Amino acid sequence: MALFEGISAFPITPADEHGVVDVEGVARLVTHLADARVDSIGLLGSTGTYAYLSRTERRRALRAAVKAVAGRTPLMVGVGSLRTDDAQDLARDAEAEGADGLLMAPVSYTPLTQDEAFEHYVAVAATTRLPLCIYNNPGTTHFNFSPALLDRLAEVPNIAAVKMPLPANCAINADLADMRARTMSKLAIGYSGDWGMADALLAGADAFYSVLAGFLPAQAMAIAKSAADQDRHEVARVDRQLARLWELFRELGSLRVAYVAAAELSLATVTPPRPILPVSADDQRRIAKALWMTTGDEAEPPEVAA
Amino acid sequence: MALFEGISAFPITPADEHGVVDVEGVARLVTHLADARVDSIGLLGSTGTYAYLSRTERRRALRAAVKAVAGRTPLMVGVGSLRTDDAQDLARDAEAEGADGLLMAPVSYTPLTQDEAFEHYVAVAATTRLPLCIYNNPGTTHFNFSPALLDRLAEVPNIAAVKMPLPANCAINADLADMRARTMSKLAIGYSGDWGMADALLAGADAFYSVLAGFLPAQAMAIAKSAADQDRHEVARVDRQLARLWELFRELGSLRVAYVAAAELSLATVTPPRPILPVSADDQRRIAKALWMTTGDEAEPPEVAA
Repeated sequence: MALFEGISAFPITPADEHGVVDVEGVARLVTHLADARVDSIGLLGSTGTYAYLSRTERRRALRAAVKAVAGRTPLMVGVGSLRTDDAQDLARDAEAEGADGLLMAPVSYTPLTQDEAFEHYVAVAATTRLPLCIYNNPGTTHFNFSPALLDRLAEVPNIAAVKMPLPANCAINADLADMRARTMSKLAIGYSGDWGMADALLAGADAFYSVLAGFLPAQAMAIAKSAADQDRHEVARVDRQLARLWELFRELGSLRVAYVAAAELSLATVTPPRPILPVSADDQRRIAKALWMTTGDEAEPPEVAA
Repeated sequence: MALFEGISAFPITPADEHGVVDVEGVARLVTHLADARVDSIGLLGSTGTYAYLSRTERRRALRAAVKAVAGRTPLMVGVGSLRTDDAQDLARDAEAEGADGLLMAPVSYTPLTQDEAFEHYVAVAATTRLPLCIYNNPGTTHFNFSPALLDRLAEVPNIAAVKMPLPANCAINADLADMRARTMSKLAIGYSGDWGMADALLAGADAFYSVLAGFLPAQAMAIAKSAADQDRHEVARVDRQLARLWELFRELGSLRVAYVAAAELSLATVTPPRPILPVSADDQRRIAKALWMTTGDEAEPPEVAA
């Protein structure tokens, strides 16, 4: 399977309260994902708190991941930064360390114009030979790509994919058909927003960029496999087991849930970077309960590879 | 006049394309503002591109400003950062370099909860003896302070002021009355969004945080003086001369206009940090024309102190 196809798993990046990355923790997490045969790993995505880590620490995390995965699973890495020159530096670092692809969101403080975002992508794509995925994440960046801008970006060398948010009305079939009818159809089109995973994959999206797959990769792969077979009954069955988790993703933010899940599943015991706070003890219990339910057996926690 | 009262002027921060601050340029700009007797200078605000500069360069800019102003004008400095520990470091730097106060916006990537923003402010305010102004700027941070959160923050030691956005319906009198009736009335209440300057000052806001005052301080001071005298006729006259500039602030973003204005007025010839692009030649001409009109004489550019 190609880089921007199938299930891309987005793990948290274990780090201490000073933003120092725990490289052994990174290695353990990506090994867990590679063992589960996810189609790719999205290191230092939003869930990987790229925005909160220094250039040096991002490089340390990537180096540890490349070494641990050892070519078994393609690695794409987030290179978003407020400044164009910083994003270029991060892209060069990613190529030098052996990443297979880049993800970049139009991080902004001063709201960007469509032209400014275009030039930002062109400048970063030109510094690397790696394929780049446009990380369209208005929930964190507050930037909205117009269809015309995505068409322009699809013509830029090295820009190969786009990670879209779920359409507001949940009409993924129509959203995908609209995109496939435009110039942007040159891009591999994937989605994120895990509660839409089943619908997006059944609709024929090229990829799904998944927070769930960062801690329960087998469940995400099960949905992808059944969706590829168009086995709607099986997709719905697995999706039902995840319903409580989807509710908590939407209520608390998937990042906050991912930290608790990683701890509950003994994958990593760390807290998110302040100002993001650990969730309440009550919410922790709700997340733990939702994790048990993903096995379809309310009495037992899901199995996790050692 | 106290620190968070009257006109606070927000200059750009001259820097090269690598984010290296031009300290002589900073000194020239703040001297211009101190000479015009603005009530305070807001260094490294949104217009001062704090979000795009490294800790070291922010420190260099502040050191140059403190030296140039030499105690003539109170200096407040932006210490916003995505990470709480980084914002604490910036607050310590500001105090060590001799700033008089701090401004802090709840910069975020993962959207913050009200509690997370509260704890972030408490943690930063506790690291310093300097008074802190809450920088409520949803246009850049996308964080919305609830009235209850502002009430809680008003009780925190060192938190002394709030910089509010203009209310959506332009009803500043009602907005201010609502705030004055709550616990948050312990805070000095100021506004930003320059096109609302005349209304906010006539309504009795304690302060106005002004981008215009960063390049045409005399015009902002003229509005403030006439507003303090409740001379509505004179306020309206000066405001009319600024009408085209306000339109361009709203259309292009005040940051982009401030860069052109600084160049037109020979205060600083620099470009904004990429990905922000210089405006088109046509928009540059429109800004230059709007600057001429601020003198009330369409034929002549305004006078600028050397």
